[in-house]
Amino acid sequence: VGVIGSQAFTLPSPWGYQCVNNTCVKKLADGTLPLATLNECKLTCGKMGVLWPQPTSASLGSEVAYFLPSNVVLQPSCRGEACSLLQEAFAVFRDNLERYHPLYSNGKAPWMQPWQPDASAHSLVVKVTVTIPEVKMSLDTQEDYLLEVTTAGGVTTVTINANTFFGARHALETLTQLIEYQEIHGLLMVVTSASVRDSPAFSYRGLLLDTSRNFISVAALKRTLDAMAACKLNTLHWHITDTHSFPLYLDTLPNMVYYGAYSSEQVYFPADVREILHYAKVRGIRVLPEFDAPAHVGNGWQWGEMQGLGKLAEPWQSYCVEPPCGQLNLANPNMYSVLGQVYKEFVDVFGPIDLFHYGGDEVNLNCWNTTDEIISWMTRNGYGLHADAYYQQWSIFQEKSHKLLTAANKGVEVPGILWTSHLTEAGRVDRFLNNSQYIIQVWTTGHDPLIAELLQKGYRLIFSNYDAWYLDCGFGAWVGEGNNWCSPYSGWQKVYDNSPHQMALNLTNSTYANLILGGEAALWTEQVDDHNLDAKLWPRGAALAERLWTNPPTGWKQAEFRLIHHRQRLVKRGVLSERIQPQWCHQNEGLCYL
Amino acid sequence: VGVIGSQAFTLPSPWGYQCVNNTCVKKLADGTLPLATLNECKLTCGKMGVLWPQPTSASLGSEVAYFLPSNVVLQPSCRGEACSLLQEAFAVFRDNLERYHPLYSNGKAPWMQPWQPDASAHSLVVKVTVTIPEVKMSLDTQEDYLLEVTTAGGVTTVTINANTFFGARHALETLTQLIEYQEIHGLLMVVTSASVRDSPAFSYRGLLLDTSRNFISVAALKRTLDAMAACKLNTLHWHITDTHSFPLYLDTLPNMVYYGAYSSEQVYFPADVREILHYAKVRGIRVLPEFDAPAHVGNGWQWGEMQGLGKLAEPWQSYCVEPPCGQLNLANPNMYSVLGQVYKEFVDVFGPIDLFHYGGDEVNLNCWNTTDEIISWMTRNGYGLHADAYYQQWSIFQEKSHKLLTAANKGVEVPGILWTSHLTEAGRVDRFLNNSQYIIQVWTTGHDPLIAELLQKGYRLIFSNYDAWYLDCGFGAWVGEGNNWCSPYSGWQKVYDNSPHQMALNLTNSTYANLILGGEAALWTEQVDDHNLDAKLWPRGAALAERLWTNPPTGWKQAEFRLIHHRQRLVKRGVLSERIQPQWCHQNEGLCYL
Repeated sequence: VGVIGSQAFTLPSPWGYQCVNNTCVKKLADGTLPLATLNECKLTCGKMGVLWPQPTSASLGSEVAYFLPSNVVLQPSCRGEACSLLQEAFAVFRDNLERYHPLYSNGKAPWMQPWQPDASAHSLVVKVTVTIPEVKMSLDTQEDYLLEVTTAGGVTTVTINANTFFGARHALETLTQLIEYQEIHGLLMVVTSASVRDSPAFSYRGLLLDTSRNFISVAALKRTLDAMAACKLNTLHWHITDTHSFPLYLDTLPNMVYYGAYSSEQVYFPADVREILHYAKVRGIRVLPEFDAPAHVGNGWQWGEMQGLGKLAEPWQSYCVEPPCGQLNLANPNMYSVLGQVYKEFVDVFGPIDLFHYGGDEVNLNCWNTTDEIISWMTRNGYGLHADAYYQQWSIFQEKSHKLLTAANKGVEVPGILWTSHLTEAGRVDRFLNNSQYIIQVWTTGHDPLIAELLQKGYRLIFSNYDAWYLDCGFGAWVGEGNNWCSPYSGWQKVYDNSPHQMALNLTNSTYANLILGGEAALWTEQVDDHNLDAKLWPRGAALAERLWTNPPTGWKQAEFRLIHHRQRLVKRGVLSERIQPQWCHQNEGLCYL
Repeated sequence: VGVIGSQAFTLPSPWGYQCVNNTCVKKLADGTLPLATLNECKLTCGKMGVLWPQPTSASLGSEVAYFLPSNVVLQPSCRGEACSLLQEAFAVFRDNLERYHPLYSNGKAPWMQPWQPDASAHSLVVKVTVTIPEVKMSLDTQEDYLLEVTTAGGVTTVTINANTFFGARHALETLTQLIEYQEIHGLLMVVTSASVRDSPAFSYRGLLLDTSRNFISVAALKRTLDAMAACKLNTLHWHITDTHSFPLYLDTLPNMVYYGAYSSEQVYFPADVREILHYAKVRGIRVLPEFDAPAHVGNGWQWGEMQGLGKLAEPWQSYCVEPPCGQLNLANPNMYSVLGQVYKEFVDVFGPIDLFHYGGDEVNLNCWNTTDEIISWMTRNGYGLHADAYYQQWSIFQEKSHKLLTAANKGVEVPGILWTSHLTEAGRVDRFLNNSQYIIQVWTTGHDPLIAELLQKGYRLIFSNYDAWYLDCGFGAWVGEGNNWCSPYSGWQKVYDNSPHQMALNLTNSTYANLILGGEAALWTEQVDDHNLDAKLWPRGAALAERLWTNPPTGWKQAEFRLIHHRQRLVKRGVLSERIQPQWCHQNEGLCYL
């Protein structure tokens, strides 16, 4: 076994590393000390090595064995769909090993036979046992796993035990992070002994991507899923449509993209969606579709009158938070027929669904209350025109939406998620929304008293408080002067320290651990497309991931060295992540502080 | 000639465009109006079409002719080096035309023979006359040009007249922007008649890139030069070294990279530099090297004692603005021998030089004043230990540096640039620095009274005021909490409106047009590497470019439509530029405002 210190090679630089007090210290090679390379040191120095997110508990040995990716073998023990997915997940694992090579390109890396015969002969045997054959992601899916690494007689054996495919996949990700590229010899190395016990703190660990303000290609969505998988995030919340564009092709409603897509190339066809769903599943990720209504609609809905269905949605240029404006037309019963059809298509392409996002944010009452058709409908029916009358109608819209979705889902009710809105406000929420039916996604600030009220009334929450978890903030305004509305930018430190339990505790003196399902960072794409997506999502998405997977009692300071390294890992996987520090800080742990 | 409106094709979407009051208005195709595609409309709608930066004056026709890039011919009239560079610049022009195709890849695009025989037969003849055979970039280089486009008998003739190669190259860039991809027919189109007269407002239009905090690859530097060329920026200020790393290989001082590079792969060899210089020249760009001293040195200088030369630089962990710290050791005469050698190598690889950047910023007197060797040297020589004594020694260091550089440059004196620093402060600058010798680069705020003093004392200035033109600001801190020191982020609007003449006027009641050479945006790379470089530079660098090339009396609002389009052009050239608005705003000019 090629263990650190057994080499006679000269480093191509005068510097090497030694692990001192859990820190990799850079030293001048004077020929007396056996110095490790930076990667060798990082793999084993510190209680958690370079694992991200931190597992529940881990114990890592201090030595590494060299090997080549050609000598990696899977020994699966599983049944059913879990088995075929495991094979696919193992192929992803193998590809990630190839990607450690600096000259990786298009699925291949130019590995050379190393000079040490024992490194060439060393093999990595990965024994994976999955108990449950079914593979279905829900809020109750067990994602825990056990992982053991031992080394003897030229073989490193990895034993993974998990209830579900998802747990096993997470274990493979952890194993990838016990492996690194050896910078001098041009091969891989694995920690020779390790024991990891792991399960997530929160069951909902999400990332929102908006594909309406700007279109995001399938390739960029897959790249995002790759990075999510590297961080054990489990939900891609796909905000597919909005007022700006309608990029989803619906078989029975082709007019939606004909009128609503930015161009004929900027469309997701059902086959694209199914490809994304499978790609996500192999990586342990559920894709949660959102169809935002009754506000945040517009482009795509213009064809109603031309087809004799009346106005399905109204564009109100003066009444919305950002142009183009639009809300569904409550007075037009045809709107509900079309909406039901939209839901049918959503369920058809995304199903089976276990969770659905109805949107429901930023309804502007003035939009409805300045339209003759709606005003006369409200009056005719005796509802009146006061705000409460409109809230009532909005809640009826929500009730009908729920019924239409359930019908589309062949009668199977699934929990619905709604954004915080005027409907969820103090004193209003429990009049209109049932807490067993709806999960509330909080996007106000982390100290909003509304959070306390929602928890005290028994609502399950997902945290996306914009003051820490909106990743689009802090740039120039997209129209007008100054910086965008939710500025300043939240650095990874703030993202990391944004603890849902702590926020609940501050507001209520209780963590409400049973009601807080998890959290989600949102990337609204007014100023994002394929070309600048990655740096806004990463590595801040990774900081979110450790908060939600590990929920450590410690803050960003204790995570910094590992995150710097994890960012480099994301880059190796093709993710154009933001750089957060000079490389000198990576090479000189802890010395970047005055 | 395939002119707008002569087509019988159906658009693949119900939408088309019409130019109304200099605005491209999106309309529903009802079969009665001849609607243009978005690109067709943008090319000719508005006085400046989609030219960026705006030329001094332009008059554009309202029709376009279709053609294929295979039918483009250069007819040059030139002598000497200007001729060979022109051929290279024309190859770049051709490649940029290919890049307009959405399926461009690796230098090629799948152009098809169009259905219209006249479009297939249409040719574009580019006649370029350059008067001066020499090709040397300096602060006096003439960059002006005239460009005429006429169309007759299936031929579009472009006539370009320029004094220098640089003017001609800029004209080719302008011509590229009179051409666009036709989205439906899959070919190119050019404005059939145009007349452009153009010359820059400022002679120094720069971008600073730091390659020490993080390494930037040759490929990323070339990509940056491509984008600069698209915007007619003419100076890449290369901040090569700093305390963090020393990535430049010096033939006679190989220890500098051996000790100072981040790794053996993160090094610029002389051949790399020469390749970059030539690549830049073809694109009308001078590469200005900076060797920052006496502060901002450190890694790379550690070998002095081992080689018997004493300490060349001192690392002072507690005295600098960011670790790692370091300043040259004034008390060690060997330091000057090595410095002279460094300059020789810089001149050798970057020469002939017409301008040099000495750095000279952020000297920390405490660094020197806490080191026994320097204290005893100061005392022994009777200089004393008060601040002024150190300023005196620093200015002597600068004088010696100037002599060493001039010697390295075979006795030819060239102007030196220095950052504003304690040495350039009120009442101090003219005691220490000669205004014919030194140009001052201002990096304080745009309302710093120092600007007035420097102008009143006759110093030539380059503006890089950090409150608008530091492009690294507004992100999370790279060490510690909160956001980085120069937050908030400056949006493109602020970058655009940052007018050097206006700043001078506000402070002095005069524009000092003769002393203000221009400006430069800086990208310090503590949080930047190859992977997230582009979005921080672009399109804000383009906003800077229009301020410096055109210096329009108008503000960002009048530039917005063109910038949105120019951003898309940068993306087509492979630059991963920031997206600044929803695509809906590009497709619906002016309607994104409430």
